[in-house]
Amino acid sequence: MKRLYHWMFDPYARTVRLALGEKALTFEPVSTPPWQPHRDVQMLAPGASGVALIHRANDARYTAVGATAICEYLEEANSEIRLLPRLAEDRAETRRVWRLSEDMFREACEALLRERVAIARSRSRSPDSAALRAGAHALRAALTFFNYLAETRGFLAGRSLTLADLSVAAHLSCFDYFDDVPWDTAPDLRVWYSRMKSRPAFRPLLADRLDGTRPAAHYADLDF
Amino acid sequence: MKRLYHWMFDPYARTVRLALGEKALTFEPVSTPPWQPHRDVQMLAPGASGVALIHRANDARYTAVGATAICEYLEEANSEIRLLPRLAEDRAETRRVWRLSEDMFREACEALLRERVAIARSRSRSPDSAALRAGAHALRAALTFFNYLAETRGFLAGRSLTLADLSVAAHLSCFDYFDDVPWDTAPDLRVWYSRMKSRPAFRPLLADRLDGTRPAAHYADLDF
Repeated sequence: MKRLYHWMFDPYARTVRLALGEKALTFEPVSTPPWQPHRDVQMLAPGASGVALIHRANDARYTAVGATAICEYLEEANSEIRLLPRLAEDRAETRRVWRLSEDMFREACEALLRERVAIARSRSRSPDSAALRAGAHALRAALTFFNYLAETRGFLAGRSLTLADLSVAAHLSCFDYFDDVPWDTAPDLRVWYSRMKSRPAFRPLLADRLDGTRPAAHYADLDF
Repeated sequence: MKRLYHWMFDPYARTVRLALGEKALTFEPVSTPPWQPHRDVQMLAPGASGVALIHRANDARYTAVGATAICEYLEEANSEIRLLPRLAEDRAETRRVWRLSEDMFREACEALLRERVAIARSRSRSPDSAALRAGAHALRAALTFFNYLAETRGFLAGRSLTLADLSVAAHLSCFDYFDDVPWDTAPDLRVWYSRMKSRPAFRPLLADRLDGTRPAAHYADLDF
């Protein structure tokens, strides 16, 4: 039995949910929003926060905190459906692009996404337009880069679906909920994202709703 | 034959050098400073930068870019000396603390360390004291956390030496070169770091010198 502590607009947590979905692993979801982290997570290890997995099997209990540790754990424990390629060279490229997606989207997450969520949670808040602008700018730079990968490769780290695709799609889906992705600037990435969205593992993410908000009209539209 | 493209004050590159040293793997070092990245690295993959490994064995060539991809590659290819523990649970905790060290030291790297290097490279530059202060503040927060781990555990991720220790030591060694670590605020981490510094794998790092600078008096002193 697996229990996943996650928050629906955390791109790291969405990466883990996609990985669980691709591997057809079921889990009990527990919400741990950043403004009210679940006590269980804090008890797992010193400084533990964010997405966390507890897996009970027979008499053993496995825990993993953070998207990197959880996805690597899932990959080791459930290798029938691979999200890291078999060849060492391809695995290295996957881990590079996976990490690059976390690094390249970081600024957009910290400015744009955080601000969108703050606005949704407090209607009386006046939007920080400098943060929104800085975030939008950072997001465009990332889109340009990943659009190039989508244009030149079948999937973002090579010829097969990997954790790199899941990480980029997880990030984009958060921005797309708030209609912040200028898709016309990244046509190849748009085609790739449309394919990603059609995968069954994506369905739970497309059903996420944040109180007080409505997603972009095309958010859950598979032929957007 | 392994070739490592690295810059001596990049904590990620230092992590890789320590991992190679712990595994007793030899390599040809090639310098790729951030202000003049080596062309070879840029050619390895789209967006490739920072530390990179090229490993030629028989007729095959393996490349890996970035500390995560390189260290995981080394661990898979050279498992006699392990830097990720054998048990899944312990591996997850190692990857968590390893990643946490990169996240917690990031701000101090971007402010404090970058500024120290900029000052060393251009004597006419007036130090950005706001950056130095912000970086020192971020560094103290990280020290408090890792001191707690050093106090309560033998090594930072558990009972054995892992990549988490190498990453934290790699970061601290950069700050320590410029005498920026307030060791008196982190006595347990200091004892742990003294042990880390005594390992043969650390020696090449203690011999690094940046033109126009002298390291802190205790930088290479094993009994500091």
